[in-house]
Amino acid sequence: MVKIGIVGGTGYTGIELLRLLARHPQAKLAAITSRKESGMPVADMFPSLRRVVDLKFSTPDEADLKSCDVVFFATPHGVAMDMGPELVRAGVKIIDLAADFRLKDPAMFTKWYKMEHKALDLLEEAVYGLPEINRAALKKARVVGMPGCYPTTVQLGLKPLLDARVIDPTHLISDSKSGVSGAGRKAEMNLIYSELADNFMSYGVSGHRHHPEIAQELSRFAGTPVGLIFTPHLVPMIRGMQSTIYARITKEADFQQLFEKAYEGEPFIDVMPPGSVPDTRSVRGANTCRLAIHRPQGGDTLMILSVIDNLTKGAAGQAVQVMNLISGLPETMGLDGIGLVP
Amino acid sequence: MVKIGIVGGTGYTGIELLRLLARHPQAKLAAITSRKESGMPVADMFPSLRRVVDLKFSTPDEADLKSCDVVFFATPHGVAMDMGPELVRAGVKIIDLAADFRLKDPAMFTKWYKMEHKALDLLEEAVYGLPEINRAALKKARVVGMPGCYPTTVQLGLKPLLDARVIDPTHLISDSKSGVSGAGRKAEMNLIYSELADNFMSYGVSGHRHHPEIAQELSRFAGTPVGLIFTPHLVPMIRGMQSTIYARITKEADFQQLFEKAYEGEPFIDVMPPGSVPDTRSVRGANTCRLAIHRPQGGDTLMILSVIDNLTKGAAGQAVQVMNLISGLPETMGLDGIGLVP
Amino acid sequence: MVKIGIVGGTGYTGIELLRLLARHPQAKLAAITSRKESGMPVADMFPSLRRVVDLKFSTPDEADLKSCDVVFFATPHGVAMDMGPELVRAGVKIIDLAADFRLKDPAMFTKWYKMEHKALDLLEEAVYGLPEINRAALKKARVVGMPGCYPTTVQLGLKPLLDARVIDPTHLISDSKSGVSGAGRKAEMNLIYSELADNFMSYGVSGHRHHPEIAQELSRFAGTPVGLIFTPHLVPMIRGMQSTIYARITKEADFQQLFEKAYEGEPFIDVMPPGSVPDTRSVRGANTCRLAIHRPQGGDTLMILSVIDNLTKGAAGQAVQVMNLISGLPETMGLDGIGLVP
Amino acid sequence: MVKIGIVGGTGYTGIELLRLLARHPQAKLAAITSRKESGMPVADMFPSLRRVVDLKFSTPDEADLKSCDVVFFATPHGVAMDMGPELVRAGVKIIDLAADFRLKDPAMFTKWYKMEHKALDLLEEAVYGLPEINRAALKKARVVGMPGCYPTTVQLGLKPLLDARVIDPTHLISDSKSGVSGAGRKAEMNLIYSELADNFMSYGVSGHRHHPEIAQELSRFAGTPVGLIFTPHLVPMIRGMQSTIYARITKEADFQQLFEKAYEGEPFIDVMPPGSVPDTRSVRGANTCRLAIHRPQGGDTLMILSVIDNLTKGAAGQAVQVMNLISGLPETMGLDGIGLVP
Repeated sequence: MVKIGIVGGTGYTGIELLRLLARHPQAKLAAITSRKESGMPVADMFPSLRRVVDLKFSTPDEADLKSCDVVFFATPHGVAMDMGPELVRAGVKIIDLAADFRLKDPAMFTKWYKMEHKALDLLEEAVYGLPEINRAALKKARVVGMPGCYPTTVQLGLKPLLDARVIDPTHLISDSKSGVSGAGRKAEMNLIYSELADNFMSYGVSGHRHHPEIAQELSRFAGTPVGLIFTPHLVPMIRGMQSTIYARITKEADFQQLFEKAYEGEPFIDVMPPGSVPDTRSVRGANTCRLAIHRPQGGDTLMILSVIDNLTKGAAGQAVQVMNLISGLPETMGLDGIGLVP
Repeated sequence: MVKIGIVGGTGYTGIELLRLLARHPQAKLAAITSRKESGMPVADMFPSLRRVVDLKFSTPDEADLKSCDVVFFATPHGVAMDMGPELVRAGVKIIDLAADFRLKDPAMFTKWYKMEHKALDLLEEAVYGLPEINRAALKKARVVGMPGCYPTTVQLGLKPLLDARVIDPTHLISDSKSGVSGAGRKAEMNLIYSELADNFMSYGVSGHRHHPEIAQELSRFAGTPVGLIFTPHLVPMIRGMQSTIYARITKEADFQQLFEKAYEGEPFIDVMPPGSVPDTRSVRGANTCRLAIHRPQGGDTLMILSVIDNLTKGAAGQAVQVMNLISGLPETMGLDGIGLVP
Repeated sequence: MVKIGIVGGTGYTGIELLRLLARHPQAKLAAITSRKESGMPVADMFPSLRRVVDLKFSTPDEADLKSCDVVFFATPHGVAMDMGPELVRAGVKIIDLAADFRLKDPAMFTKWYKMEHKALDLLEEAVYGLPEINRAALKKARVVGMPGCYPTTVQLGLKPLLDARVIDPTHLISDSKSGVSGAGRKAEMNLIYSELADNFMSYGVSGHRHHPEIAQELSRFAGTPVGLIFTPHLVPMIRGMQSTIYARITKEADFQQLFEKAYEGEPFIDVMPPGSVPDTRSVRGANTCRLAIHRPQGGDTLMILSVIDNLTKGAAGQAVQVMNLISGLPETMGLDGIGLVP
Repeated sequence: MVKIGIVGGTGYTGIELLRLLARHPQAKLAAITSRKESGMPVADMFPSLRRVVDLKFSTPDEADLKSCDVVFFATPHGVAMDMGPELVRAGVKIIDLAADFRLKDPAMFTKWYKMEHKALDLLEEAVYGLPEINRAALKKARVVGMPGCYPTTVQLGLKPLLDARVIDPTHLISDSKSGVSGAGRKAEMNLIYSELADNFMSYGVSGHRHHPEIAQELSRFAGTPVGLIFTPHLVPMIRGMQSTIYARITKEADFQQLFEKAYEGEPFIDVMPPGSVPDTRSVRGANTCRLAIHRPQGGDTLMILSVIDNLTKGAAGQAVQVMNLISGLPETMGLDGIGLVP
């Protein structure tokens, strides 16, 4: 059994972790922290966990996190780099679902997250938690920075093309759409139901924190700095995310086959047959990324549709996938949930 | 022209007032206050009003409210009783959309709203703003306490029956359902999209502030204290409210005809034909209450379906209706909007 | 392993059965029929099942249903009574999710479903599939008529009270609300998105097919014919159902304790603590019924809030629970899914 | 007064026309046809029109359409070209909201709509009903083909740039998103609530009928055939549409100013200030197109956000705007509705 701690379990990635770990055959939930809700049974906040999870929230001090094998940070940015070093020294492996270990360049981190990075050592050794790309490194990792949800869709949607050098890396466009849970569980006016229901809009058009993260990784694949336009939109739904990605072809290839080969054997990536259109509900609550490759009117532009559940493959599910890897467990353990349809 | 001031225009009743008054042939919007947003153009907060309303929010001090003919309070409870007396002395008529002038008994006000009443004189002279019931008094009113949204549905649904003494007033049940905008425009966790969408629940089951208000008015109609169970539910939709009301018959009558007679000529009450079922969208944005009278399986219980838009007939629309009355204008002026379907 | 056939798998109860059975440790999906979609891979219709279910739809003739241990009917009314007798003679146990084996009186069946009953023998031996009430009989059953979704909520919400003879059985009210998936997967105008979203309404007020079913069972509990008003409402959400039930107290008791005792040890019934309010999302995709008992203002009326997922505890999940019972498996096997929140 | 006939009033463009025309000061609704619903009061189908519209549906034969001044076709494709010639000969002006008069090339019409064009004379004289572009011609038109909803957003979003020859016309991308009402009021499985709610997907990726229409008009503006990728997506909301348009800059300019100048004085086009993001609800039920011009990261690609209500500026509202023009009325008459927020 892997002994698990969760720091900051009152948000949506927190409850999604709980939902998955509560049914994971090898996970033993030992502690979950929340300064604010300390003492409250988790199931009082999330009644869906009544009679399933009998933990109470504790303060980070009360929780004996150092005795855990793995600690997840489902916290705001900045917490993992604060608490992480001591845990790692104590032999704990840490998985951060926030942004502390995503951007390799600490200056970029400071620019986008408005704080100094406090754990440069950990940052340097941290592995970027996208298993389909960093599987080998993750198996040996002590510190993992999990990708953002948007970055997961865009990277999985572009990697085979950039690897194969068949598209123009200087003019990539990702027109991305997310359900509202991606914005987190926060008491903010612009997140309330009556503001968002039956409504649609772009946001973050002047610059979104996921942009540098995506650009960093795509540039690694391309072997050259990429040019990327990334436009997020807010969809009136709870879960689900799609990136509609446009790239100019520079070299002909069998693009469908390229993807099928690249992701052959991947348990959580589904390259759909030609002509397909994935919908977000088909991955609701599932740790799956569905991809469809299109070439509109046979022209020189490829269009990739990349769909995930932002809380599962886009956050907590992918984090459990990483936990399996770093704990020597089968990568798919505890992640066989089927998309909830309808 | 009626010169209008609005105190507290940043909530949903505020913007609904603006939407209606901006197209009202005899309303001249002179001032709208918000301490917090002072200086901001109203249309910056609500882009739907771009090129329609060019007012800016001002502080209550800057706004020359005393020069207005009518001032609406679209504020939290307690503001109207604070600012009202001075305005009334200056000859301004005030219409409060909050609860300051709803409950006739100041002790009840204190019990439910946790504050002392500061304007007992105004409370005493205040007229309850349900035009279909208090039309004559409203024409001469200087101070009006507008009904809550739930109370509007329940009163209009029960008055003809209580007046006619044909039902048991001691065991009334209103199982009521509201869209989320009824909870207001507030940055609260339990109002955010991801908590409420695709979800349904009761709330306020241990006691809701609209209960004493409804009971007060129903008791007036019945001529005796009523017994009322009132259960509000939250529906994942923006606007719309239905009360499903159950009452035991004590005396036979032609109940359909009773309603048709009671509301004959009422411009904003639509007694539907026997067997009908109103839906909330049919009154979306319209100042209409639709009623349907049913007698399930021909038994001894009546069921009344009473449907409004909580922001229109349940708040701002009804307030404009009252403004028309107290200003000597045709009651329906500016209120001919048709339900937005689909 | 239990060899399973599903007749009529293209509706919502069909896909919910597939979702549950695909992960059931002892279920072997052998055949799924659809005359219309014969030959189509199930996963082409429901991409959420890609790489999970590799069955194709077959015609009832092709499917070797007689070799199955258990056959589920997720069909329109009338199919199970048609095909059932031959299967039962062949030793197959059948579980009908439609109405063929719900109403004990064939005349009632004909009245409400507009067809003659064709399998009176099976009807007579059929057990009503509510495990919390008929567990012993179900373990030996060959033919099971699964309860409707509304009936599940109302029966579980009233049984302890009727058993204990503490309420007036002649004036029961169930004000019930359902998500749209309860209406099935049908190409009907009144089910399309733009008709139902952001909208709320009652329906079936002149008589709903679940009424006689509920009344039949409640009368059994009460030992006397009950009087029941049952008002269904349509909520703009996909899954989820609540019955808000009102009953007049005839004898004092500790009602909370009454429920806790009645459902002690029940794995799928959660009697919440006093003062609680269940929400439908807490059971989204889970085989749980959550109950809360209230006594508004301490008066003489009880209010029970009874919440399920209409497709899970209200249909397919409960059917799998029954399958476990009639197959000698642990009742909870394959049913440990946690409500998907948010 | 303009005497109005509507052919085919049972769909969403039909009821939107009724909503607008019922309050239009110079419109006299004379007839509305529906073969299927002939004899039924319009308000029975759409209760939002109770006590507002007292017409009944009639058959086209009963309706004396030739005596009308203007006849709207809110019908499936092919009806206007069938009935139009006789009406035009009788002196009636016709406005088709379907596709019969959109594509100038009858071969293209046949290719995309799978029928021969039957009224080539009318097609030739028909004016394309986008007032901001064809105002002068529309004032004299007898036959108008109204633009589709998507084409309205894309054309208004690209015309100033193509006119000014500042972007590359060969690689335009419109990533477009629509509410569900754009698909019409049809009993189709893929339109039902439980299939679309809380879900998001692309559709029509292999070719959408609006593509040739958009390309035809953009090519006119550009003076050269354009290359266009047009990807429609379905958003779980009723009304509202956004096109997120990407174009490569070929010549520097003050793009914000370009748009402001191009649309100066336009009553229904709102070029928002730099940095703005329009949301669809701000135009819910309003005849407005809101545009925002962005240049992501100061690169060589422009992004234009173009937002309308697909039923109003995208269909019925724009058709009334055209009716005003061809009838010599003020263009804005009857179209001053404000976006319904929230």
